[in-house]
Amino acid sequence: MKYLWSILLVALLVVNVNQSEADCGYAACHETKPNMVNIHLVPHSHDDVGWLKTVDQYFYGHKNNVQHAGVQYILDTVISELVKDPKRRFIQVETAFFNKWWVEQPETSKQIVTKLVNEGRLEFTGGSWSMNDEAAVNYQSVIDQYSLGLKFLENTFGACARPRVGWQIDPFGHSREQASLYAQMGYDGEFFSRMDHNDKDTRMENLSLEMVWEASESLNDDAKLFTGLLYTYYWETPGFCFDVHCSDDPIIDGDSYDNNVKSRVDDFIAYAKKVAAFFRTNHIMIPMGGDFQYEDAEVNFKNMDKLIKYINERQSEGSNYNIFYSTPACYLNSVHEGLMTYPNKTQDFFPYGSDTNSFWTGYFTSRPTQKRFERDGNHMLQVAKQLSTFANLTSDKQNEDLEYLRRIMGVMQHHDAITGTEKQHVSDDYDRLLHDAIVGAQNNAIDGLRKLTNLPTGEFESCMQLNISVCAFTKDSADNVVVTLFNPLAHTSTEYVRIPVKEESYQVTDEKGRVVASEVLPVAWQVLALEYRSNDTQHELVFKASVDKIASYFIKKVDSGDNIASNQVNMVETYDDNDSGETVVENSLIKLVIDNKTGRLKTVSMNGVSESIEQKFAVYKTKDSGAYAFRSNGDVEEVDDEVEFTVYEGALVKEVHQHVNEWISQVIRIYEGINRVEFEWLIGPIPTDEETAREIVTLFKSGISSNGVFYTDTNGREMLKREKNKRESFEADLNQQPISGNYYPVTSRIALQDGNKRLAILTDRAQGGSSINNGELELMLHRRLIRDDGYGVDEVLSEEKFGTPLIARGKVFLILNVADAKATAAERVEEKQIHLPYWKFFSKSSSVSSSAVPLETPDFNDFPNSVHLLTLEPFSDDEILFRVENFMDHNEGKAVSFNIRSIFDTLGGLEIRETTLDGNLPLSEMKRFKFHQDGAGVSPSTPEYYTASHKPLAVEKSQDVDDFSVTLKPMQIRTFIIKRE
Amino acid sequence: MKYLWSILLVALLVVNVNQSEADCGYAACHETKPNMVNIHLVPHSHDDVGWLKTVDQYFYGHKNNVQHAGVQYILDTVISELVKDPKRRFIQVETAFFNKWWVEQPETSKQIVTKLVNEGRLEFTGGSWSMNDEAAVNYQSVIDQYSLGLKFLENTFGACARPRVGWQIDPFGHSREQASLYAQMGYDGEFFSRMDHNDKDTRMENLSLEMVWEASESLNDDAKLFTGLLYTYYWETPGFCFDVHCSDDPIIDGDSYDNNVKSRVDDFIAYAKKVAAFFRTNHIMIPMGGDFQYEDAEVNFKNMDKLIKYINERQSEGSNYNIFYSTPACYLNSVHEGLMTYPNKTQDFFPYGSDTNSFWTGYFTSRPTQKRFERDGNHMLQVAKQLSTFANLTSDKQNEDLEYLRRIMGVMQHHDAITGTEKQHVSDDYDRLLHDAIVGAQNNAIDGLRKLTNLPTGEFESCMQLNISVCAFTKDSADNVVVTLFNPLAHTSTEYVRIPVKEESYQVTDEKGRVVASEVLPVAWQVLALEYRSNDTQHELVFKASVDKIASYFIKKVDSGDNIASNQVNMVETYDDNDSGETVVENSLIKLVIDNKTGRLKTVSMNGVSESIEQKFAVYKTKDSGAYAFRSNGDVEEVDDEVEFTVYEGALVKEVHQHVNEWISQVIRIYEGINRVEFEWLIGPIPTDEETAREIVTLFKSGISSNGVFYTDTNGREMLKREKNKRESFEADLNQQPISGNYYPVTSRIALQDGNKRLAILTDRAQGGSSINNGELELMLHRRLIRDDGYGVDEVLSEEKFGTPLIARGKVFLILNVADAKATAAERVEEKQIHLPYWKFFSKSSSVSSSAVPLETPDFNDFPNSVHLLTLEPFSDDEILFRVENFMDHNEGKAVSFNIRSIFDTLGGLEIRETTLDGNLPLSEMKRFKFHQDGAGVSPSTPEYYTASHKPLAVEKSQDVDDFSVTLKPMQIRTFIIKRE
Repeated sequence: MKYLWSILLVALLVVNVNQSEADCGYAACHETKPNMVNIHLVPHSHDDVGWLKTVDQYFYGHKNNVQHAGVQYILDTVISELVKDPKRRFIQVETAFFNKWWVEQPETSKQIVTKLVNEGRLEFTGGSWSMNDEAAVNYQSVIDQYSLGLKFLENTFGACARPRVGWQIDPFGHSREQASLYAQMGYDGEFFSRMDHNDKDTRMENLSLEMVWEASESLNDDAKLFTGLLYTYYWETPGFCFDVHCSDDPIIDGDSYDNNVKSRVDDFIAYAKKVAAFFRTNHIMIPMGGDFQYEDAEVNFKNMDKLIKYINERQSEGSNYNIFYSTPACYLNSVHEGLMTYPNKTQDFFPYGSDTNSFWTGYFTSRPTQKRFERDGNHMLQVAKQLSTFANLTSDKQNEDLEYLRRIMGVMQHHDAITGTEKQHVSDDYDRLLHDAIVGAQNNAIDGLRKLTNLPTGEFESCMQLNISVCAFTKDSADNVVVTLFNPLAHTSTEYVRIPVKEESYQVTDEKGRVVASEVLPVAWQVLALEYRSNDTQHELVFKASVDKIASYFIKKVDSGDNIASNQVNMVETYDDNDSGETVVENSLIKLVIDNKTGRLKTVSMNGVSESIEQKFAVYKTKDSGAYAFRSNGDVEEVDDEVEFTVYEGALVKEVHQHVNEWISQVIRIYEGINRVEFEWLIGPIPTDEETAREIVTLFKSGISSNGVFYTDTNGREMLKREKNKRESFEADLNQQPISGNYYPVTSRIALQDGNKRLAILTDRAQGGSSINNGELELMLHRRLIRDDGYGVDEVLSEEKFGTPLIARGKVFLILNVADAKATAAERVEEKQIHLPYWKFFSKSSSVSSSAVPLETPDFNDFPNSVHLLTLEPFSDDEILFRVENFMDHNEGKAVSFNIRSIFDTLGGLEIRETTLDGNLPLSEMKRFKFHQDGAGVSPSTPEYYTASHKPLAVEKSQDVDDFSVTLKPMQIRTFIIKRE
Repeated sequence: MKYLWSILLVALLVVNVNQSEADCGYAACHETKPNMVNIHLVPHSHDDVGWLKTVDQYFYGHKNNVQHAGVQYILDTVISELVKDPKRRFIQVETAFFNKWWVEQPETSKQIVTKLVNEGRLEFTGGSWSMNDEAAVNYQSVIDQYSLGLKFLENTFGACARPRVGWQIDPFGHSREQASLYAQMGYDGEFFSRMDHNDKDTRMENLSLEMVWEASESLNDDAKLFTGLLYTYYWETPGFCFDVHCSDDPIIDGDSYDNNVKSRVDDFIAYAKKVAAFFRTNHIMIPMGGDFQYEDAEVNFKNMDKLIKYINERQSEGSNYNIFYSTPACYLNSVHEGLMTYPNKTQDFFPYGSDTNSFWTGYFTSRPTQKRFERDGNHMLQVAKQLSTFANLTSDKQNEDLEYLRRIMGVMQHHDAITGTEKQHVSDDYDRLLHDAIVGAQNNAIDGLRKLTNLPTGEFESCMQLNISVCAFTKDSADNVVVTLFNPLAHTSTEYVRIPVKEESYQVTDEKGRVVASEVLPVAWQVLALEYRSNDTQHELVFKASVDKIASYFIKKVDSGDNIASNQVNMVETYDDNDSGETVVENSLIKLVIDNKTGRLKTVSMNGVSESIEQKFAVYKTKDSGAYAFRSNGDVEEVDDEVEFTVYEGALVKEVHQHVNEWISQVIRIYEGINRVEFEWLIGPIPTDEETAREIVTLFKSGISSNGVFYTDTNGREMLKREKNKRESFEADLNQQPISGNYYPVTSRIALQDGNKRLAILTDRAQGGSSINNGELELMLHRRLIRDDGYGVDEVLSEEKFGTPLIARGKVFLILNVADAKATAAERVEEKQIHLPYWKFFSKSSSVSSSAVPLETPDFNDFPNSVHLLTLEPFSDDEILFRVENFMDHNEGKAVSFNIRSIFDTLGGLEIRETTLDGNLPLSEMKRFKFHQDGAGVSPSTPEYYTASHKPLAVEKSQDVDDFSVTLKPMQIRTFIIKRE
């Protein structure tokens, strides 16, 4: 290879002598013709970061019997082809793959690619680590993975590599938050290709396939984004797939009986004519590519060259079709210059109905344990980032470990990863990758803790199986165990900590030696019965902690004879269906009433509101559901078995252990002082038979008059109003799938309300949810299927672990409140605590405290309550990326101001500058396309742009403390790079 | 593309400054290591010149849904990859495709390719127009298509492009004549990969996969050729197909969980070790390629680069495996330098049994009409070549027309063309190509005739449907028709000419106005009954012609009242099964006896020999036969229906018209003065049903005691002795297929004999044949099948034409003689006349003869009788290629000498030089590998070579007539280039 690149480099250098260098970006776009239909031919390859094959299998072209795909060859051959002709273009989308390829390149190859980038011949589009899903992802992880991808591109190539356009061509529905984030990152627009078929039909009629998305009611212009739907998905230019994997007719222009230039040009122009009729400008974009195409790029480019040549030759005969290589950015630039107006869009594009029987809402829940594990990954990533920053970890190993988790989390956001729509072996590989990455980053966290605490041993360990009350560290004894808690939130938080223990008595003390109240409870027997669980610890020690950033608690076993009251919580009673009457479980904030006969929750009282709320499990017996689509055959069947239950009442915690049926159980739990009710469900193995799959929901039935209206979050940030059977701008045909067609992604919260009361359910992972009946909320928790739904994965989603159908465990949280903005604001606080609780590190306590003085950790408690420490991470050897977010919306709060000088100082800041959301572009340089909206007055006569809506922060250490003041409007996120000593 | 090549050219020129140019050929081979197993890795692509797709479909990658294959991309990407690294190699085999690609290349690309050829990086192997079949082809056409391919390579690139090695990797069995021709063309050896499994097993045991083929008993050393069998076919290196069409594991050498360098290297070395055990030197050849591979050559070379790197890295750990890019020539060179001895081989490699139930003998007969049409193509090609030479046709159009037929005939020799093993639509395309090419070349022939005759109108036409007695030219009237006959043979020949006419009386006169005896006979009613035949002419006018090179005969309709005897031949009698006794049909040379009861031939007397010979048709009812394999289920079933027959007796011709059954009929015919019996069969539509296919043979049952021995020709030249159930050097398992396993290709002749009598059957096209029972000969004439045999064509061979199952017509010729060399010599003369009869041109006679003086045609009658004018054709604008052959073998004749000075002068010769058989290499420069044979005494200590075994002719016009003397040993062919004025 060295030889090749030497040749090519020489060639390029030679060529440069005679060629003025083109600017990159929009300046590199080919000229268009004003009075013609301009066909922007966009060569691209859609390369899933795992799907039917693992990431590495796709990269190396391994296991081609599963799917023929080898990304290394795509990049190899595309680069060779781009070198051959400066008119050619290619867009590279998934930075995960590009990075993997780049690091294998010799220096000369890198120089050539850099030149191609600088000339706009290789253009990065999207540019994030993976093309993330938009339903099940949390905004924090989306921001992270864009920052990661764009930073790699910035560091590698500089400004010419910065993507201008979002390219979400495959995700199965589109979130408003994604568009909002694009706007905040300075993107000029986004394109995608999957939209509900009724929506698309309507938009085609209205010339509304392109629009201005008003992606945030709080952020207004800062979140407006031009958004376009590709005409026929991204892989179909009917009859014109020239790829080596396709069989469409090549352009045969030789002296051959088969010469087909005339018919091929006729056909393409006919197609272009059809497409052009649905767009407002005289430009159309025709993507040329598809899944893993361009592995043999010569085939594609050779034929596209001919297509272009012969179509444009027709112009001399009066044809008004002009075709050329282009990119989505160049197309968008032409559209922007077209000065047309566009309709607006205010909601999102969920659910995605590909036909009347196919709403892609199953994947909101598919692979529930993988969706949960991804949250653990994010949790550790934020913890490790903060600890690495605080402790100023800079070794190569530390940088690599942290970077690896960033990358794997980028992979996990991929629209076939977190979605659960990949093959089982790929899911297994994601688990492996994420596990390894968490373990690596955890080493950073531990290195950080060593510098940030004065604990003597420093031998911290994490326990990854606390969800089933297993921890190698405490399995033999919890005597003399130190639990060091790291709080990733800005503000001091209070949380109940649970530690697996044997049935003994323990005493917990804080760093000052003060005894902290604690209790020991039995683990639910359904958990203990898990065959693959080691049964060393059958109980959990519970204590209440309060942590600023880092705090340690010390656990000591005590003899019951030690004159110290046993902290064991005893069973109150076990109820079965012979009992009648009610059981009341209450603490100072919450009162629950359980119906003894049914064994189910009956009433909840909290926040001064009391409401009859029945919680049940229910089953959709389905047949044709798949990993993507949820297809119900009828109404949900509620599990009406009478539930046996046992109550444990301690002073700190009260638990109702419910045995629902052989494969469903639950613990309903309230903690003293915590204003939410926790429902810890355990589901599986789900029984299925040849004709019956089962999809399990948790159902909350209240008397609240919600009238079909409910609310779901968009990627864990803003809330969207949903109305049963309604869509924003079209009529959806819901006859075949009245349930699935009303399902929406719930990343963090679903709620309903009437004039008085509001019921919100918060989740610990992404799930599908809906409100099918008045006053009811449901969340789909787990699914075990019997069919593949035919969208390519070609496997039945029927997970197994340890030889039995997958058993999943998780939590949902109920908050009942008055229906007002204070209530939703309170939910937001709970959301953050659920999303980023303490990370627990375990070590053995020693008698002597270390004398080392720990490094100082910054104190973020001065932040206003609505300000979230969204990101704090090492950005380069001497830079820190720092993001703050006002997580209240315009209904819940107002702009807040605060000063970051002390944080800046604690972090050793020398100067601080503000950037776009992704951290890579100085905010002052941001200039993005503004598109005129329909009905917004006279159209502009020149293209318009948005720039930063506030004065970007850019201050140095020497400046006045007041200069460090930061104001955050509702829902605003601001991103800074702090240069440190 | 221009841009690319500019870059690369610049690059190459730059590189050249620092790189001393490597010699091509063997000098360009990579170094090997003496104490290691040297693995010659040979990148190649096997590109069928038509099979499942047409030639153009393969070239352009059209109809990839039928088969993914695009040769243009193979060459595009291979060239790009070769440029990248001078260590890489690729062999190009099929010149038909290379030429098609080459003409599309811009000048700079041509320069790059030339450089790659000159450095031995792109090496031509085989190099003929197509990789010809070896069973059904005639040697004349093989020589032509090698001459064509090698000439293109010579003209395009010069000496570096000359192939050294034959590469017949796919043909289904191998002929001795092919090896002989290779030797005569100066090849150093040949490789192939299909051999009877029992033969291969035996050879593996004996380390005899490589051998010295003694390919001619007459030519001795001049026809000895090193021949090697590839170890596992040409496409299987198990587990190591890196092609874009394969799914074997790539070499994953990155930082990946999937890194597989160790296991891949282990596996490859294990394979190499296994292979090495079966070869005599420390060199093995591992072909890396397969059908239409390298369409994405980057994938192949990238992985092979890695494979080579990591295997050779092992040497530092003590591994003794050394691997490098190589070519078959480089491998052969290493073997030659290895100075080992090799076993000999004297027979051929037919039939090819791939397993005990699969002898590939069906294709000897498959598509009988296509096989016949190919003969017509050769016939016209020789006619057009000679006429173009005589008339010195040199216009571009004339050159192109002739060249086009040369090329299409090259295509027709392909091992899926003449074999009949292609899909139907491909067969249709071959028909189209060949028809167009014949029509084109015919224009040359006509242009030539215009200059060579003084016929006034010059409006010659050919009739392509004379085989069913249809000619557009005579359909309305044969009055005033001139039939101009061209005799392609060297010597004046005598032949009966048949012209479709209406039932009228005609008079035929020669050029001197002399009346020539003629007769009019009815066409067999089965031919007249063909639905698609226009029935304008129901009779044929027959007259006897005698032609040196060109002669015209004039046909005039005469009134029966013109006092000229009617020349209509009347029916003697019609016999049906109620008759008994015998019918004798005889002329001065031959006496046939027909059994009136059976209606079949009973006795033949000729050449002083009389023998009971029954001719019958017989049917193999088969089920599992396919286009390739003939798989009988039992013995042949003779058609014992009693045959109705009608006898027509004229003075010139006597015919027995037999009605055998509804779909078989025949005319047995003898001509006065012609010493062979003609059997013109008409078969079809062959009935089949779901369980029964039918394969039809003509069977000659004599009383000759042949004891299982019979003789078949090899590609129409030398004869090979066959012995039922016997093979030259191994035991064949014939239990499952005792019939098919005894079938052999018959291109021109099959014979048997005892001490006294000899029976030979000559054919008009290639067929399969055998002698299953003592004294019997059979030829398979036609097949209609019900299954595909699973070798890829994936279609049932069940041809249809005009909506009904194909009806085929053809002739076999019987010669009964005493069993001696004179008899076989006489057969050879007949063979030539059957192979190259007159071509008939038609025109309208005018009353006035043209006054133009026709050009002189050379007179070859001075050639000894055993000398055949094998080739006479324009070679360049001022050169003629001239080949003469002594077609008697060492048993039949001796060396003959003659002088070519008068020919030379008539052709306007200035100088003449002798070349290798293909015409492209001065014979004086030929130097080819000699390999020592087992048991031939002490091995040589240095490599040995063969050079020309006689002094090559090289004379000029100024030299003495004696210097133009040419001697031809038995079976020798000598090739000359005559430079003309």
